[in-house]
Amino acid sequence: MRRHKIVMGFSGGMDSTTLLGMLLNAGYEVHCCTFYYGSKHNLYENKAAEDIVGYYKEQGCSIEWHFFNLSEVFLPFKSDLLLTGGAIPEGHYEDSNMSKTVVPGRNLIFASIMAGLAESIGAAAVALGVHSGDHTIYPDCRPEFVKALDMVLFLSSDKKVQVLTPMVDMNKTSILEVGFGLPIPVPYHLTRTCYKDQKDSCGKCGSCQERLEAFHNINRIDPITYE
Amino acid sequence: MRRHKIVMGFSGGMDSTTLLGMLLNAGYEVHCCTFYYGSKHNLYENKAAEDIVGYYKEQGCSIEWHFFNLSEVFLPFKSDLLLTGGAIPEGHYEDSNMSKTVVPGRNLIFASIMAGLAESIGAAAVALGVHSGDHTIYPDCRPEFVKALDMVLFLSSDKKVQVLTPMVDMNKTSILEVGFGLPIPVPYHLTRTCYKDQKDSCGKCGSCQERLEAFHNINRIDPITYE
Repeated sequence: MRRHKIVMGFSGGMDSTTLLGMLLNAGYEVHCCTFYYGSKHNLYENKAAEDIVGYYKEQGCSIEWHFFNLSEVFLPFKSDLLLTGGAIPEGHYEDSNMSKTVVPGRNLIFASIMAGLAESIGAAAVALGVHSGDHTIYPDCRPEFVKALDMVLFLSSDKKVQVLTPMVDMNKTSILEVGFGLPIPVPYHLTRTCYKDQKDSCGKCGSCQERLEAFHNINRIDPITYE
Repeated sequence: MRRHKIVMGFSGGMDSTTLLGMLLNAGYEVHCCTFYYGSKHNLYENKAAEDIVGYYKEQGCSIEWHFFNLSEVFLPFKSDLLLTGGAIPEGHYEDSNMSKTVVPGRNLIFASIMAGLAESIGAAAVALGVHSGDHTIYPDCRPEFVKALDMVLFLSSDKKVQVLTPMVDMNKTSILEVGFGLPIPVPYHLTRTCYKDQKDSCGKCGSCQERLEAFHNINRIDPITYE
C-alpha cells in the first residue's frame, strides 16, 4: 500500500499525540517533528515524544521521528517558558502574567522548518495540533496567524506545501473523545503536558489544570503520575 | 543618542552588505543575523560576514552580530546548494537546472528566527535584502512571498514586528550605485558572492557572473580576487 507522506509538529503532549493517532489511523506515513528549544519542560516532553513514536512503531504504524535541537537558536530569546527566563506562573491561562510564557516566533520557526522538510521529502502538508481551546495570549495559536501561515508556506514552497489543522474546531475535551474512539489506542499514559522542570507533572500549572479538567469532563482518570 | 534597533539578514554578500551600510548610515542600531545552514559556500560567506561586521565596528558603528548554526536543521533537506546535494550548475540563473539550487524553506526559516530575536530585543522590524534582480526560480524571493511573510511575522509577534525591504525596487547595478554613494564606504573588498566551495571566487557561477556584470555596468573594478 502506497501511503501519502505528511509532516506534523509533535510535542509529546495530549493534543499532538491525538493528532498523530488520527493521522496514522487515517493511513498516512507520518513524519513527526519534535523540537528542543530550551524550555523548562523540554527534556521531559522530548522523551515522551520519543516513547510515543516507539509505541506506534511497535503497533506496526508507518511513522518516522525527526528531532531538531534548536537550543542555540533560542538562547537570545526572551520568555519565562525558557530555562533562561523567570519562574513559570501558576494558575489559569487567563491570568495576565501567563503572557510571560509566550516564546517569540516559536510556532512560526517550527512550522518553517517542517515546511522545508515536507518539500524535501515530497509531503504536501504540515499538520498542526491547533485547536479551539488554544489561548489568545499566544498570538501564534490564533486563527488569523494560522491562515497567514498557510499562505506563506504555500508561497515559500512554490505551491507545494500547505497547512492542515484537523482539530481546529475541537477543544481539549472533544480531543480526548476523538482520541479514545480511535482503533489503535492513543497512549495517553506516555504523554507529557506539564510546564514545570520536574519528572512528575505538577498538577497546578495552567497546562496541567486544563488536562485534568478535560479527563474529568469525559469521566476518565488521567493515567499519568502527578506529584 | 538613542538608536532604534533593527534586525537584518546578513549573508556577507554585496546586496546585504549594501543594506547594512544603508541602515547604519541611516542611524539604526543594527543586529545582523548570519546563518550557517550547510551550503557549499557557507563557511566562506560566514567569514566574510564576520569580517564586515568587524570593519563597521572599527568605524565606530552601532552594530551587533548574531550567528546561528543551523547545520543540523538542514541535514534532511534536499538541494544542490547544500553539501549533501549534487554539483552546483554553471551558467545563468535562467537555466532550468538552476532550480536545483533552491533550498526549501530557507528564507522563511531565517526570517522566522530573526522575527523571534527582534521581538526579544525590542526591534520593530526585520530588514531583508530582497531586490528587483532576485530570481523567480527562488519562490522565497518573490514579492508575493515577501507580502505574506510581512503578514505572518506581524501576526506571530502580536503586531510588534514587520518586514522592511528598502532595496525592493533596486537591481544589482543600482544597489552598487547606492552603496558607493554612502558616507561610510561599503567594504565590497570583504564581501563574498560565489556559490562554489573554494576560497577564491570562481567568476563563472550565476552568482559571480551577475556581480561582475553589475560592477562592469557602473564602470568599476570588482575589488575581490577571482581564480
